[in-house]
Amino acid sequence: MSGNTLGTLFTLTSFGESHGAAIGGIVDGCPPGLDLSEEDLQIDLDRRKPGTSKHVTQRKEEDKVEILSGVFEGKTTGAPIGFIIRNTDQRSQDYSKIKDVFRPGHADYTYAHKYGIRDYRGGGRSSARETAVRVAAGAIAKKWLLKKYGTTIRAYLSQMGAIQIAFKNWEDVNKNPFFCPNQDQVIELEEYLDGIRADRDSVGAKITVVAENVPVGFGEPIFGRLDAEIAHAMMGINAVKGVDIGKGFGSIIQKGSEHGDELTPQGFLTNNAGGILGGISTGQPIIAHVAFKPTSSIPQDRKSINTKGEAVLMQTTGRHDPCVAIRATPIVEAMLALVIMDQALRHRAQNADVIVHTPKI
Amino acid sequence: MSGNTLGTLFTLTSFGESHGAAIGGIVDGCPPGLDLSEEDLQIDLDRRKPGTSKHVTQRKEEDKVEILSGVFEGKTTGAPIGFIIRNTDQRSQDYSKIKDVFRPGHADYTYAHKYGIRDYRGGGRSSARETAVRVAAGAIAKKWLLKKYGTTIRAYLSQMGAIQIAFKNWEDVNKNPFFCPNQDQVIELEEYLDGIRADRDSVGAKITVVAENVPVGFGEPIFGRLDAEIAHAMMGINAVKGVDIGKGFGSIIQKGSEHGDELTPQGFLTNNAGGILGGISTGQPIIAHVAFKPTSSIPQDRKSINTKGEAVLMQTTGRHDPCVAIRATPIVEAMLALVIMDQALRHRAQNADVIVHTPKI
Amino acid sequence: MSGNTLGTLFTLTSFGESHGAAIGGIVDGCPPGLDLSEEDLQIDLDRRKPGTSKHVTQRKEEDKVEILSGVFEGKTTGAPIGFIIRNTDQRSQDYSKIKDVFRPGHADYTYAHKYGIRDYRGGGRSSARETAVRVAAGAIAKKWLLKKYGTTIRAYLSQMGAIQIAFKNWEDVNKNPFFCPNQDQVIELEEYLDGIRADRDSVGAKITVVAENVPVGFGEPIFGRLDAEIAHAMMGINAVKGVDIGKGFGSIIQKGSEHGDELTPQGFLTNNAGGILGGISTGQPIIAHVAFKPTSSIPQDRKSINTKGEAVLMQTTGRHDPCVAIRATPIVEAMLALVIMDQALRHRAQNADVIVHTPKI
Amino acid sequence: MSGNTLGTLFTLTSFGESHGAAIGGIVDGCPPGLDLSEEDLQIDLDRRKPGTSKHVTQRKEEDKVEILSGVFEGKTTGAPIGFIIRNTDQRSQDYSKIKDVFRPGHADYTYAHKYGIRDYRGGGRSSARETAVRVAAGAIAKKWLLKKYGTTIRAYLSQMGAIQIAFKNWEDVNKNPFFCPNQDQVIELEEYLDGIRADRDSVGAKITVVAENVPVGFGEPIFGRLDAEIAHAMMGINAVKGVDIGKGFGSIIQKGSEHGDELTPQGFLTNNAGGILGGISTGQPIIAHVAFKPTSSIPQDRKSINTKGEAVLMQTTGRHDPCVAIRATPIVEAMLALVIMDQALRHRAQNADVIVHTPKI
Repeated sequence: MSGNTLGTLFTLTSFGESHGAAIGGIVDGCPPGLDLSEEDLQIDLDRRKPGTSKHVTQRKEEDKVEILSGVFEGKTTGAPIGFIIRNTDQRSQDYSKIKDVFRPGHADYTYAHKYGIRDYRGGGRSSARETAVRVAAGAIAKKWLLKKYGTTIRAYLSQMGAIQIAFKNWEDVNKNPFFCPNQDQVIELEEYLDGIRADRDSVGAKITVVAENVPVGFGEPIFGRLDAEIAHAMMGINAVKGVDIGKGFGSIIQKGSEHGDELTPQGFLTNNAGGILGGISTGQPIIAHVAFKPTSSIPQDRKSINTKGEAVLMQTTGRHDPCVAIRATPIVEAMLALVIMDQALRHRAQNADVIVHTPKI
Repeated sequence: MSGNTLGTLFTLTSFGESHGAAIGGIVDGCPPGLDLSEEDLQIDLDRRKPGTSKHVTQRKEEDKVEILSGVFEGKTTGAPIGFIIRNTDQRSQDYSKIKDVFRPGHADYTYAHKYGIRDYRGGGRSSARETAVRVAAGAIAKKWLLKKYGTTIRAYLSQMGAIQIAFKNWEDVNKNPFFCPNQDQVIELEEYLDGIRADRDSVGAKITVVAENVPVGFGEPIFGRLDAEIAHAMMGINAVKGVDIGKGFGSIIQKGSEHGDELTPQGFLTNNAGGILGGISTGQPIIAHVAFKPTSSIPQDRKSINTKGEAVLMQTTGRHDPCVAIRATPIVEAMLALVIMDQALRHRAQNADVIVHTPKI
Repeated sequence: MSGNTLGTLFTLTSFGESHGAAIGGIVDGCPPGLDLSEEDLQIDLDRRKPGTSKHVTQRKEEDKVEILSGVFEGKTTGAPIGFIIRNTDQRSQDYSKIKDVFRPGHADYTYAHKYGIRDYRGGGRSSARETAVRVAAGAIAKKWLLKKYGTTIRAYLSQMGAIQIAFKNWEDVNKNPFFCPNQDQVIELEEYLDGIRADRDSVGAKITVVAENVPVGFGEPIFGRLDAEIAHAMMGINAVKGVDIGKGFGSIIQKGSEHGDELTPQGFLTNNAGGILGGISTGQPIIAHVAFKPTSSIPQDRKSINTKGEAVLMQTTGRHDPCVAIRATPIVEAMLALVIMDQALRHRAQNADVIVHTPKI
Repeated sequence: MSGNTLGTLFTLTSFGESHGAAIGGIVDGCPPGLDLSEEDLQIDLDRRKPGTSKHVTQRKEEDKVEILSGVFEGKTTGAPIGFIIRNTDQRSQDYSKIKDVFRPGHADYTYAHKYGIRDYRGGGRSSARETAVRVAAGAIAKKWLLKKYGTTIRAYLSQMGAIQIAFKNWEDVNKNPFFCPNQDQVIELEEYLDGIRADRDSVGAKITVVAENVPVGFGEPIFGRLDAEIAHAMMGINAVKGVDIGKGFGSIIQKGSEHGDELTPQGFLTNNAGGILGGISTGQPIIAHVAFKPTSSIPQDRKSINTKGEAVLMQTTGRHDPCVAIRATPIVEAMLALVIMDQALRHRAQNADVIVHTPKI
């Protein structure tokens, strides 16, 4: 209830602060018999890792994961999978100057009021560093879903500031530090982001995520709908301000005769629904879009107050991403994987006896 | 886990189908000592009720709620509040023709595959009729929040199709059947919707909801964030395809220097955050926007398949709203009330000993 | 969290007070496709019903259950099953005299302090009347388990006061009002209970419950063990003060060489474990014993205090069972059925891919 | 749902196997501002630690706990408290011989069937080693309860085999390796246990636990009763076969006129209820008794089968406790502390506005 557990049957319970000894988590409910090693988790952790290009924070973290339980002779046993990632580049001295002030756009103000005490070092618990834990857990879900259903879950940068990105292909996504699915637009993005940084500013962006080969029937009406769980998971990522599914906010100006996806014996003709009807997967690709606000930490004078309520001017210096959304791409994938995995287990708890008609779509 | 319970400490468990004997629910966790009568629930139920204007479905339902428990001598006792609403206008005969076909844009196809059996009468469990249960429960949460913190939760229609609605004042919202906060635009909306209906079509819309006087500190990081819970609640309403908070999707094109809300001793200077930072309420108004798709049921020939997988052409006749979002306004309010109420109880479970500094904002 | 929901995947959420309009509940998570009618629930309700012999309370209640949802054309649909039982014999006037006093052995004192308000009519929410809801829900679980695995769940009176009851056979259990498995001891029980009643007193008893044909593998270590869930369920029945499994408290004086059940290729040689090892079912019969305290309401002068803290002498007159355990037999069965059903669904969520080796036992 | 989380608001999620890299857990929901250090946890861990006398297993484990998060500058922050205990004395070679056989009385057989795969080293997840995690978490709960309400939670050995132990005083409990509350009986226990060990056998025992200064009003009817939660927690300890509260199984032979605790303006006259009425604390001491079976691992030939289903004779050699209950005393305390702490938070979530009348008892 205190918000550190995600999921119901396949659960991740997370712990750790930006500058504590370690971050980590416990994945519970993983089916037994899955081949699993630390390397499986490390691949996605490395994709999220700071310091990989000049466009992201230069904090140096190995993000080396250690699995402590739940795996025996290379296979999951059904027991909870505990894992930790030691914090190595903590530099606590950097943060003493923000001890008594609230950084605009950050959670400093709200944490201080909620708990009456605040680990101010690097944002403490509210730091995006914690998302490494989700990426590690998501890698387990991804692996199981791929093995069991052939499900793939992939995300890409679909917009940065005003730059719309035209999806070209999945191969390009891994060829550049932006997770941009169109190598032709990479230079434009680089120049744009260089300008943002030169202006000592930051910018927002949009990530799109697609899950393919999700069986029909996942999602629990009324309050455990697949789309509701996706919205919850995505809105729970640091800096996210909006989520939509399929045609999403674009549905507002559609007519019913346009929006409703018609069916034929060969499958659905369109996918305005984004692969979900009535909160349940249709078997089509699941498509979600996630809006990220610009990084709150910028090296400009900003008005704020200190813990005594007095006016201060402050700059947030240090190591920050000018566009937080970039490194969020693997996080978005991980969150979707965690949601679908949980729904897979929920579905078979109640409906294991239902004969599944895999539709042509 | 089967998706019929919302919330963690203040919970609503819902039951009922469109054409069953009754719909209803159990509200658990309501603090004792709240003055409560059926009339408190009826007020919002009447706002959502079908048949109140030509712009909404003509189904005739009294939506008369009966409280069965949890209230003694006019006050809540802390025991669960059970309530039912009998279905009176069931007309099951209307629906026999859709028994063996899947209506495009509806949950018929996904329910059939998920459960292997389907109550086809009026959408069964997937019918928006079920949302009356949420409105009834939300009224309890609204009343407690108002009494305890002076919190108000109000929603309005902010866009229909391409028509943007300029917020004028809250009084106007209750003066027209559209929940339009600008009486000057009502004729435009009426004419637009008459046109949609004449075209035998439907259209999408956007609802905006605002909660005022929410104390600072509500929301549970990391996975129980207030914004994540709001996204979950809103995306769980029938026909919703998108949710955003504060500046929302508009944050994508903002710079950090624009977006981050500066603080002064007198309070925040702006509210791009929509009243939530790090998943926790700031004390500012909480603002969310919800995108509704156009009604799926339209009286036009649409391509679909039957349960044997054969191609069919079908029209959905019967009593439907050309713009489902209209009647959804009280539902959006109810969902937000349920989320904030739950967070209020979650907050004090862990933090009842924290001295609350109510900020000037 | 407010204690009115039992289970995790197959859940019962209960509502209702002794003298309110109705009691009832919502069963969520029931697999679709189960044949179900009100009659299925009524059978066990009638076994628990008051007024069936002179040895139990003479309150007149039809305990007529109405299913409101979740069943369509005689089969469960996977949607939540809402049901209510109207209270008909409420006689609220009987209870006005206990409005301001706390009955010894009852929950009056604790409810008053917990909630600051109390529905004093017949114990309100704390009345054993609420257990009818569990019996109704348990009947659904029993039916599914029998169909799916051939599981049977049956309880009997194994001790009343100092009278130990020697189990003879299951047929006898239904031949007498005591659920005594040995018709030869019925007269002894009748005479004993007549004496108790003549003394204006009450007495405790023990119920034993046995589940047969439970597959090996049900139960979730570490905190969701089958035996822990059974202990929780049984201790949650009104008037229960103790629970043990298999040899139970008798294990204290056993040696390891006696207690540990040896295995052979033909199965286990003994069942000291009561069918559970490491919190997981072994495939042997599951056996639990439940201790009930004597009825607290007795027509003798008892010392107590009123709500002002003043000393009072009070007699609890009215309609009461001299031995509450008698009517508890169907409740014990229902609780065990609810637990095993929930564990069945939990098991297959995580382990649906495990090939089940049904052991010879 | 996979059974590795205990509690609802104050939760412990546990991981780790007997011979894995580490065991550990995450405590979530701890109120902020509690002084906490590793030493606070270590005290109880040392009381449970193996190898402290000849009467318990000679496994050498430092059981040195490391707190990884949730504590900042010596105080809890409200963030989850992650902690680990490295396994140092793993000796995996000892266990290869039990790889393919099922030890009688152990969870080998049930784990193998449930998961289809088994970490056979020292019992893997089913090892009592995992209980160290609970002891560490319980120490946090104990500390908060003591600070907040003055609550103390203490357990002692009340019976070993046929030897009944007469409670003398709490001081004696810490003077001997048996947690015996009567120093006069220690020699008798030593000689008895020496005899058991000489016979290559083991024996059961009973632990009694008492919580004092628990406020009136804790416990959630109907399914979250304090006694039900205690029963759940205790039955979830390895080797436990029975739990009762207050007079417990002794209530069976009581009359209502004996059992019902009378009230006077000075408080309750007796405590047959064990401090709980209607599932809610009365303010009196909470008293529970827990029955432990004899250790299953004994160095005698026992009949069993191997994973091929063939008959085998096996001795369980190695380092074992002849009476597992001895070291369980701190575990029983920890479990009760975790339950009461959780109920404290649950209580104030719903009832924080109720004015608490602390009764004279």
